[in-house]
Amino acid sequence: MFFPFTKIRLANMSASKKLSAREIERKFLLKRFPPNLKKFPHDTIEQGYLATGRGGLQVRLRKKGSVRSLTYKQGTKGEREEREIRLSVEQFNALWPATAGRRLTKVRYDVPWKSHTIEIDVYRGRHDGLVVAEVEFDDQRSCAGFEPPDWIGRDVTGKPKYSNVALAHD
Amino acid sequence: MFFPFTKIRLANMSASKKLSAREIERKFLLKRFPPNLKKFPHDTIEQGYLATGRGGLQVRLRKKGSVRSLTYKQGTKGEREEREIRLSVEQFNALWPATAGRRLTKVRYDVPWKSHTIEIDVYRGRHDGLVVAEVEFDDQRSCAGFEPPDWIGRDVTGKPKYSNVALAHD
Repeated sequence: MFFPFTKIRLANMSASKKLSAREIERKFLLKRFPPNLKKFPHDTIEQGYLATGRGGLQVRLRKKGSVRSLTYKQGTKGEREEREIRLSVEQFNALWPATAGRRLTKVRYDVPWKSHTIEIDVYRGRHDGLVVAEVEFDDQRSCAGFEPPDWIGRDVTGKPKYSNVALAHD
Repeated sequence: MFFPFTKIRLANMSASKKLSAREIERKFLLKRFPPNLKKFPHDTIEQGYLATGRGGLQVRLRKKGSVRSLTYKQGTKGEREEREIRLSVEQFNALWPATAGRRLTKVRYDVPWKSHTIEIDVYRGRHDGLVVAEVEFDDQRSCAGFEPPDWIGRDVTGKPKYSNVALAHD
């Protein structure tokens, strides 16, 4: 069972492409860690980029726990395409060296909050100390109605300096 | 046996990277087809690009016969890095739609000539009629001593208009 997943997400694509739910995300800094953070499910994520380019283009390699994947992303907020395949250890290892100089490491905690999951990314290495929380919403209504817990800080949605591509290239 | 090959080719890389044989190639147009072309081993190649960028960067998907692969290439003549993994049908199919508008099709014939193999690419689709021959050499001496058969035409080595990336984007 080499390939338990293949994820294809097409957000708000133009006529020629499949239409699916718009991907709505918000990103925040943290005032402080939520209580008992380490009790929540978490994985170390290592990721690196084979390619990044204009229009939000990225070809990303990621190892999350023991799951290795390659993800193609293109487009910005309004129109996004995302395609992801799982890689075997051998496939991942063959490509990974090509991401040298364009990598980052973080620990991701999945913290449930009301009907949402708040993903808390604690960066390691060069960005040690940086902590970012991300929440994904099914629709605008759900996004608008989001009441963050009191440990959530400033909204940094869309700020380039907090994008993973930017953090990997620093 | 999902992954019979993983090819990593590092040509003349800088200190921090593994050193291996320099990759020396020449590309030619054809005066005419060699006799009995269709008797030589050949495969239809479909390829498309997930990403292309400066410095010879490309992330390419390729289907050659029934063999599907993803190749990362970076660098130009002097310093090149190439990493290739085989993909399963499912992996390939999940990524392939992302190459729309950056694809080409050709039939590749492997024609033995003295101690070399001349790869003859007969383009299909938009480039129907274009035929290019490519020869790879182990070293400069072998390259310099190459005596082409009489059906080989003009040397177009390094001409951007005959690069596959350019042909895929036309």
